[in-house]
Amino acid sequence: MAAFDTLFKIPTSLSAGTGPSVPIVLSARVRLARNLADRPFPGWAKEAQRRDTLSQCEDALKGLDPLNGGYTFAMSDLSELQKQVLVERHLISRELSTAGEGAAVVVSKDGSCAVMINEEDHLRIQVLQGGIQFKKVWKTIDALDTTIEERLTYAFSPELGYLTACPTNVGTAMRASAMFHLPGLVLAGQMEKVIRAVNQLGLTVRGLFGEGSDATGSIFQISNQQTLGESEEAIMQKLTSVLQTIIEQEENARARFLEADPVKLLDKLGRAYGVLQNSFVLCSTEAMNTLSLMRLAVDLNMLPEEERSLIDQLFIQCQPAHIQFATDNALDSTGRDRYRADFLRKHFQMLPPLNFEGFVPSS
Amino acid sequence: MAAFDTLFKIPTSLSAGTGPSVPIVLSARVRLARNLADRPFPGWAKEAQRRDTLSQCEDALKGLDPLNGGYTFAMSDLSELQKQVLVERHLISRELSTAGEGAAVVVSKDGSCAVMINEEDHLRIQVLQGGIQFKKVWKTIDALDTTIEERLTYAFSPELGYLTACPTNVGTAMRASAMFHLPGLVLAGQMEKVIRAVNQLGLTVRGLFGEGSDATGSIFQISNQQTLGESEEAIMQKLTSVLQTIIEQEENARARFLEADPVKLLDKLGRAYGVLQNSFVLCSTEAMNTLSLMRLAVDLNMLPEEERSLIDQLFIQCQPAHIQFATDNALDSTGRDRYRADFLRKHFQMLPPLNFEGFVPSS
Repeated sequence: MAAFDTLFKIPTSLSAGTGPSVPIVLSARVRLARNLADRPFPGWAKEAQRRDTLSQCEDALKGLDPLNGGYTFAMSDLSELQKQVLVERHLISRELSTAGEGAAVVVSKDGSCAVMINEEDHLRIQVLQGGIQFKKVWKTIDALDTTIEERLTYAFSPELGYLTACPTNVGTAMRASAMFHLPGLVLAGQMEKVIRAVNQLGLTVRGLFGEGSDATGSIFQISNQQTLGESEEAIMQKLTSVLQTIIEQEENARARFLEADPVKLLDKLGRAYGVLQNSFVLCSTEAMNTLSLMRLAVDLNMLPEEERSLIDQLFIQCQPAHIQFATDNALDSTGRDRYRADFLRKHFQMLPPLNFEGFVPSS
Repeated sequence: MAAFDTLFKIPTSLSAGTGPSVPIVLSARVRLARNLADRPFPGWAKEAQRRDTLSQCEDALKGLDPLNGGYTFAMSDLSELQKQVLVERHLISRELSTAGEGAAVVVSKDGSCAVMINEEDHLRIQVLQGGIQFKKVWKTIDALDTTIEERLTYAFSPELGYLTACPTNVGTAMRASAMFHLPGLVLAGQMEKVIRAVNQLGLTVRGLFGEGSDATGSIFQISNQQTLGESEEAIMQKLTSVLQTIIEQEENARARFLEADPVKLLDKLGRAYGVLQNSFVLCSTEAMNTLSLMRLAVDLNMLPEEERSLIDQLFIQCQPAHIQFATDNALDSTGRDRYRADFLRKHFQMLPPLNFEGFVPSS
């Protein structure tokens, strides 16, 4: 499938989407759930109805910015592997990858915008950007949503707001989330405490691949839980202020760790660098954890800032489905672990040594 | 103590003593237990008797080759730390280091010969050499033993042979042992089988530091058990033939491992190299295990042959007491782990990269 191959070649990155790749914050994302009026939700719809939803939505999305010139993939046209690649890029959910007839995704050319059709809701619109620019993300997604609404009639209740398949989404039907890199809090063993505090503020913390995924690579998604009784702007404002606090906590955790036990941190960073430069077998969990530490090394100026985007790209490129696709589906799990090690070793042998100047305590 | 400081500066090595440092075989050692006639064994002797034994033995050893120009240390004059250094160099036993009044050691200038006085027996004479040259070792120790016997009257029974404090040593009172580096058999999980087979032949297998020590660094001491009913030459001949078989088994294990799963071996060697080049905290077990793999890398021509003696030296120099002594007793266990990492990192950052040419399977 030529279109998929073209999409696969788009540079992808942990701090997905366009925008700056910066310390601590990887990306900001807003997702809107929308449904067509007077039509059963995908989970209750017959196949013919889902097909009809798909064709109506596809028509409505045609030519709209920023989707214009992008890609449309029906799930039924994709192989299992291709679907997994889209999941690893956060362009579709695991749920869409297993959805039946009529499930599709429309992706903008740069991968920063994606609209899933016939997932849990008729439409799931998402826009994501590197850094923590909710205003910019909101402006883009709000404009897109408004144009779509001019072409389709949304299921909307004046009292409740947007209606959704799952009652927890009713109202704004919006989920705003930020992807964070929090190695300092993880190393300091404070992440559990942070998660509890964040939960009490009505926000949710998840791993890199959403619900049920763990904290591999010290990467966390933090998002709003509530969709009723608050405006989109209020939700994003509250989220931004909490996220600001988390950034501060991460910065403090790093500073305290560096003060209390710099050698332990150097040891962790040095060993991760040694593994990436010298291993011949590397599973994806170890790859994510060592790359995560290299991202921290960039934050601490131990590696040049220009290597940040390389590291963020390697993070996604060494995911299982990405490796499987890049090697024409020819490898078993052991083969992937070897390919991953070769791939990362070649990149890391080109990097300069970690610059520990100013960190090594005089003995 | 100036003499001890001088001894400490003698280059020491895993393949201790003079002689070649070669693959698989580290060193060959012969130890003879001897006792003075008509005098209680050290364990039963009064302090005055032990002092008298010491002075008689010291006199007898004076000026003898290869001890001439060497060092004499009374245990009571050494600090705990100095005694541990001697244990790590295999110049004294743990038993001597805790023995009471009259315990001493006379060491040759190059460290290849040592005579313990008032250990379990009145005299424990040992000679060790790099490589597996039992004939040469025997010639040296037999000549020394003969000269001592001209000056002292040994406890000897025409029926039983040399009499010793522990009945298991009676007869030849000789223990011949070889120190082996067997990473191939360890990696292949075959070491247990080898130990069982060797035991059935009446030989004993121990770790680097003798009885009770484990297989850290894949280093094993193999020695005769029997001292009665066999001549010294017969014992060494039998031992040499078993050792030859073990060398072959180790070679086969390496060859099979390289054929069956070269990438797994490269991964282990690469990671060990990465740890030695990049870690900031390194306990002695990890240091021994990674250095052991680097010795294997030299055997496989992945590192230059001239680095073998460096690696063998580092092995001893990074033992706990050696580090403690080198740093004037100023470090706790954490401090030692950091010093050890710094020490090894500096050496390994000077080494060329591992040369995997011919080992990496084309993918």
